[in-house]
Amino acid sequence: MFAEMLAVTETCHTVHIDLGDRSYPIVIAADLLGQAATFAACPDAAQAVIVTNTTVQPLYAAQLQAALAGKYRQVHTVVLPDGEAHKDWQTLNLIFDGLLQQGCDRKTVLFALGGGVVGDMTGFAAASYMRGVPFVQVPTTLLSQVDSSVGGKTAINHPLGKNMIGAFYQPQLVVCDLATLDSLPQREVAAGLAEIIKYGPIADMAFFDWLEAHIDALRQRDRTALLQAVRRSVEIKAWVVGQDEKEAGLRAVLNFGHTFGHAIEAGMGYGNWLHGEGVGAGMVMAAHLSQALGLVDAAFVQRLTRLIERAGLPTRGAVLDAADNAGAYLAHMRVDKKAEAGEIRFVLIDGPGKAVVRAAPDALVRRVIDTCCAQGVGIQA
Amino acid sequence: MFAEMLAVTETCHTVHIDLGDRSYPIVIAADLLGQAATFAACPDAAQAVIVTNTTVQPLYAAQLQAALAGKYRQVHTVVLPDGEAHKDWQTLNLIFDGLLQQGCDRKTVLFALGGGVVGDMTGFAAASYMRGVPFVQVPTTLLSQVDSSVGGKTAINHPLGKNMIGAFYQPQLVVCDLATLDSLPQREVAAGLAEIIKYGPIADMAFFDWLEAHIDALRQRDRTALLQAVRRSVEIKAWVVGQDEKEAGLRAVLNFGHTFGHAIEAGMGYGNWLHGEGVGAGMVMAAHLSQALGLVDAAFVQRLTRLIERAGLPTRGAVLDAADNAGAYLAHMRVDKKAEAGEIRFVLIDGPGKAVVRAAPDALVRRVIDTCCAQGVGIQA
Repeated sequence: MFAEMLAVTETCHTVHIDLGDRSYPIVIAADLLGQAATFAACPDAAQAVIVTNTTVQPLYAAQLQAALAGKYRQVHTVVLPDGEAHKDWQTLNLIFDGLLQQGCDRKTVLFALGGGVVGDMTGFAAASYMRGVPFVQVPTTLLSQVDSSVGGKTAINHPLGKNMIGAFYQPQLVVCDLATLDSLPQREVAAGLAEIIKYGPIADMAFFDWLEAHIDALRQRDRTALLQAVRRSVEIKAWVVGQDEKEAGLRAVLNFGHTFGHAIEAGMGYGNWLHGEGVGAGMVMAAHLSQALGLVDAAFVQRLTRLIERAGLPTRGAVLDAADNAGAYLAHMRVDKKAEAGEIRFVLIDGPGKAVVRAAPDALVRRVIDTCCAQGVGIQA
Repeated sequence: MFAEMLAVTETCHTVHIDLGDRSYPIVIAADLLGQAATFAACPDAAQAVIVTNTTVQPLYAAQLQAALAGKYRQVHTVVLPDGEAHKDWQTLNLIFDGLLQQGCDRKTVLFALGGGVVGDMTGFAAASYMRGVPFVQVPTTLLSQVDSSVGGKTAINHPLGKNMIGAFYQPQLVVCDLATLDSLPQREVAAGLAEIIKYGPIADMAFFDWLEAHIDALRQRDRTALLQAVRRSVEIKAWVVGQDEKEAGLRAVLNFGHTFGHAIEAGMGYGNWLHGEGVGAGMVMAAHLSQALGLVDAAFVQRLTRLIERAGLPTRGAVLDAADNAGAYLAHMRVDKKAEAGEIRFVLIDGPGKAVVRAAPDALVRRVIDTCCAQGVGIQA
């Protein structure tokens, strides 16, 4: 199916996320966010609020504001500080303050304009403000276009854990404007590619083949390649989420690379490693663990590692604690949301193209961590 | 139907709240919370967390802990400061801190042991912790037994508005232990009666007749009378919520007295007037507004006022601003969640036993406020 798809030269594609009365479309194309037509089907209300951050606001807020001005009597903007380090209650409260100071009612529509942090926070604010108002996502990073745009996961961090406080809450519409990727730092393009690469080993090795052939085009932000990569990633994620909206089982496979990756992010202090960088190194570690358990061979691990490297991502984990590095990883992984009663649930590759979620002996995990980590890697800023 | 019900002498009753896959039972009887059997059907997990406050903890936490000890390997307790003034993010975060410090996973069951504030905060914590864990309500006040036990509304306050941040989230089970009402201050019994009286004018005048006959027994905490009053209130609320879980329309009638009442609560500073006291005076004000609009006659207003007075509740609103009292009420009411684009939606009585939600001219509302308020009323502590 994916091979056929590639024969078509598209400039715009819509993926329909089917979740019953919480269904919504994801529109993918260049130059969408400045057009009123993009938002014609959004819910009616007197007020709309654009939530963005200090980096994205000067680039795109005026365009979006203009596109919404005909539909909403008032369009306010709330500007948050940029970065994962601000994905906390204090910053979330800036959104609530803005909504209440403007007298926003429960029909007010929130527009998340920015990357994953803005999307996650705006989504949680929308889920919680007056117990729920509609929201629209306008993701402006590659990572958020392929990842947080599907699945309805919203959250903020707690000092003791990432994404610990949040809600499952679906947007009304997601607008992936490929033109916004032109302004993205190269490091963030690579971070987005980590979540795209992920879909190969867990679900679709034909897509993985295609990625091997197009990784350079993607790094160069070729729009035809980006449209196909975003489209296929979103399709696979939508299929998985459609099976398991609340993460009771299958959906956990989307966290391939994330258990190790979250440990790196948390251990290094949020914001030092990008999420996608943690996932990059984390996928290599999870692949090694899969190999140690006899699920994949060394050739597969090498092939995955090579693609992650070509994407510009770290392929080795950071050393979190020089005295007991494996212990530091294990401590972080035990508070992961997938853990149950202290037992870490790893997403492993059970043969190329198929993921499985299972526990692993501590001794084996320690060996993989010792093999896969190196001092001073990963940060390429 | 209610008349027939009263012929039966019951000591225990279960009301089933029918919300599809979010259905749950409300069990009403004395001496429930210390019995393991009460919680036999609760979700299995390694850990349970009792959330309570400094007032309720010494009275009932040990009993509940003992009842849960056989079912859960670990039973932790988080003790919050008591009172509406603490229904904020900082206090909510004490719950998240406790859950994370104890390494609680996403199967952990939260038990809300206390009044409406504990229930609302525990419910919101359960809705948000790891994007949702199961919770059980053990309401220990009359108000929370008849009101916050049904409907799935959870929330915290924001400095600019009451219950502005929250979620619709249903419990697994509600346990209304009538024995816990013995420890309740008389002022809080009266506050609970306000929410019980409400169901007469909006839905069931036969119940209102019964309340007129049993108001003294209820104030004396006669358990037979309490069982019937709690049961009927919960039944009516369940019927309304079953029609309109997310408060799109009908459910708003449950806010009879609340628009004025919230203005009093907010204007006097949360915690100075009890919620039920605000609703008591608020119902009198809403009845006067209904009369001014020609929907009910003076005899009905008088009859309702008399029952509210006999319950031990204030029947006049507080003066929020000596210079422009009506203006102060209107300003508070315009940020009410029911308001739309700044227009206040009042719950009015459209003939005894039937509620309607509509706007009213400012001039008329001002006249009602001027008639119904008096300096220094309401606080009877």
